[in-house]
Amino acid sequence: MRQKYFAHGETVLRHGDRAQHLWLVRRGWVKLSRQTPDGKETTVGLCTEGDVFGESALSADASYAYHAEIVSGEAELACIPAKNVQAAIHDDPRWASTILSMLNERIAQTQLRLEQSSTMSTAQRLGCFLLRLCRGETGDGATLQIPVEKHVLASYLGMKPETFSRSLQQLKTVGVEAQGAQLSVASVRALSEYVCISCSQSGSCQNEA
Amino acid sequence: MRQKYFAHGETVLRHGDRAQHLWLVRRGWVKLSRQTPDGKETTVGLCTEGDVFGESALSADASYAYHAEIVSGEAELACIPAKNVQAAIHDDPRWASTILSMLNERIAQTQLRLEQSSTMSTAQRLGCFLLRLCRGETGDGATLQIPVEKHVLASYLGMKPETFSRSLQQLKTVGVEAQGAQLSVASVRALSEYVCISCSQSGSCQNEA
Repeated sequence: MRQKYFAHGETVLRHGDRAQHLWLVRRGWVKLSRQTPDGKETTVGLCTEGDVFGESALSADASYAYHAEIVSGEAELACIPAKNVQAAIHDDPRWASTILSMLNERIAQTQLRLEQSSTMSTAQRLGCFLLRLCRGETGDGATLQIPVEKHVLASYLGMKPETFSRSLQQLKTVGVEAQGAQLSVASVRALSEYVCISCSQSGSCQNEA
Repeated sequence: MRQKYFAHGETVLRHGDRAQHLWLVRRGWVKLSRQTPDGKETTVGLCTEGDVFGESALSADASYAYHAEIVSGEAELACIPAKNVQAAIHDDPRWASTILSMLNERIAQTQLRLEQSSTMSTAQRLGCFLLRLCRGETGDGATLQIPVEKHVLASYLGMKPETFSRSLQQLKTVGVEAQGAQLSVASVRALSEYVCISCSQSGSCQNEA
């Protein structure tokens, strides 16, 4: 496992490159995106501290399924050769179960995002994203640093920038206040109540207060 | 591995049940769905011949992440105890790599559906679904049997039933004709050209002609 440092705007990996590493975000924000032949870009992931990307490296001879680019200031990533992971699985099959759980979690998260695009309002989707970032905070309130441009967040959440602004405005009623890259959540519980009523994972989600 | 037979409308497994089996569809159609506390249902998957569901059984002590119900006439499913798969991985780690590839494919498919909800028109999304079913057809034309009610397909594709009907109408211009549960595709190539221009996987998708 090697530490690597990247600057804002730097490309970590390219869609279609041979996938030989898994990446773990230590610090900063990474945007995972793809482009269609007719020129539309979509943001398929937005990773921060503790998130892993490049999971297609776990399949033999696979290529990366997206482009990864730093969207915060300096970022620190750990780069793990896929062959080390494969060797670990070979030596101790308990590793396989860890990796399988990680991939299942990824499937569940992606399915949830897909589902939320039809069951949740845009303000609820933004709220759900914030709840994930509040995880690990002690106490009911939280202060979040999101040093990522608004249009990147909006694209990840499947909204136009103006819808994003309106949604942020709506969250004021449940105690969310934005000031530049800093967001304060007065009560994680109040935000959960507002968001999770429209989510099928309610009751079994670790982001819920 | 045991064969099991189910009738239309029968429940295969329930959201939240302890996940102890993987399921492989041999014949028929299975809808995977979830419900939110405020009463919205979403269709997170629609599986047919060759598709696997219940993948959360691969994680230790996991529960199923959706409800599975037969939406065609009689269906035949193979039921595989997760502990057999775990034992196989333990005995021969090459199994782990097969399973990892399967899960990565599932992540890729789900991400793609999420992406397509913003890059594709509803007619293109329906067309993409049909292209997947055409896979394995020899020749450029194909006849598909989809014995599933329109509102189920529409829900899976994230559309209202009336949007689904309009989208099917639009696909006539590229040679798709519907007659009851039967759909004919005059040219898979023509359908691909219409659909895949708006997909980031274009060029590396096995459903593309």
